[in-house]
Amino acid sequence: MPTVLCSPFSVAVIETPVRIKFLVQPTRPEWVEQAIAHLDTILLDHSHCERKAAGVAINLMFRYPSHKPLVDALTAIAQEKLDHFRQVNQQLERRQIALAPLSAPPYASRLNAAVRPQEPQRFLDTLLVCALIEARSHERLQLLAQHCPDRELAEFFASLVTSEARHYGTYWYLASQSFGQEVVAERLQQLAALESEILSTPYPLPRIHS
Amino acid sequence: MPTVLCSPFSVAVIETPVRIKFLVQPTRPEWVEQAIAHLDTILLDHSHCERKAAGVAINLMFRYPSHKPLVDALTAIAQEKLDHFRQVNQQLERRQIALAPLSAPPYASRLNAAVRPQEPQRFLDTLLVCALIEARSHERLQLLAQHCPDRELAEFFASLVTSEARHYGTYWYLASQSFGQEVVAERLQQLAALESEILSTPYPLPRIHS
Repeated sequence: MPTVLCSPFSVAVIETPVRIKFLVQPTRPEWVEQAIAHLDTILLDHSHCERKAAGVAINLMFRYPSHKPLVDALTAIAQEKLDHFRQVNQQLERRQIALAPLSAPPYASRLNAAVRPQEPQRFLDTLLVCALIEARSHERLQLLAQHCPDRELAEFFASLVTSEARHYGTYWYLASQSFGQEVVAERLQQLAALESEILSTPYPLPRIHS
Repeated sequence: MPTVLCSPFSVAVIETPVRIKFLVQPTRPEWVEQAIAHLDTILLDHSHCERKAAGVAINLMFRYPSHKPLVDALTAIAQEKLDHFRQVNQQLERRQIALAPLSAPPYASRLNAAVRPQEPQRFLDTLLVCALIEARSHERLQLLAQHCPDRELAEFFASLVTSEARHYGTYWYLASQSFGQEVVAERLQQLAALESEILSTPYPLPRIHS
């Protein structure tokens, strides 16, 4: 079993069941059914997610411009997200799906609402929220890779899985470097519980984080 | 004389004097003196400029998510800006200059204040403000490449000049595709006059756009 990073997130390979340590609850089977039934919308939402993730990384560099390890790591993440964004948009074009706005599920905004406003807690929480979003994206891309009936698309999703794992590992690592593994583990547990609780109420529209 | 793009911005090669068509006034010689006397600060500001330029490109994709030619072009620009950001940060590291926040000159905010709030004028003005900022960056990187006494740094500035030209050409091209060359030329003239007027009042601190 290959393990991509020495982080508390154990990285599953693309086999059933997908189970990411530190995601408190795995994805409901209903999400997979919904996603596969609406692959065009899921792919469009995936495009938005990649662009948003690049924007989040850049915004974090704006907020902590003096933090060299963060700036170096997030530059690489933002570059990779933009590359994925470009690739998803190619898949959309291949399927003749026009770029279009999509309403966002409450997932990210509810997680961000749990970020404590004072530093240094704000920094810790922001990194862990980013780690959890990446971990969930990683899990769901694996599920899409397993269950997607379009072979080219399934292979495409599979091709992104490893870097999503690397990204959540990076956010976790940055948090651990600044706060130590014990503090990180405690707060991660709280935020991971919230993350699973948010997803326990299904969002009616098909989205990567519904 | 190589010309990089068939745009109304004629691209000068790295020889004196640097003169970019459609920048109403060339940079004052005093800026070059100030910049060369404070190369460390200029390099740090350059780092901020590259990160901001990546952020601007991503934000524009957020605002116009359905505009495929814009999304494709700005994805490439954002990727290249992040690559430049990484390279500038390597130059900072080589010179043992720590990453740090820097106050911004009023240049970009004054230009953005001229963007008309209603669409489609907002779209046109935003593209042309971006084009002008890129054109001025292109001119000033050329000046730095010419006058910088540190040879490695001079070569580094020179290595970025062509892509800055490509970026302002891209913003101009996107505007022309949507609004036609006549409308673009008229508005560009107005905004270019403002751009030069803003720079006619020197900002006391050394910045790329002071």
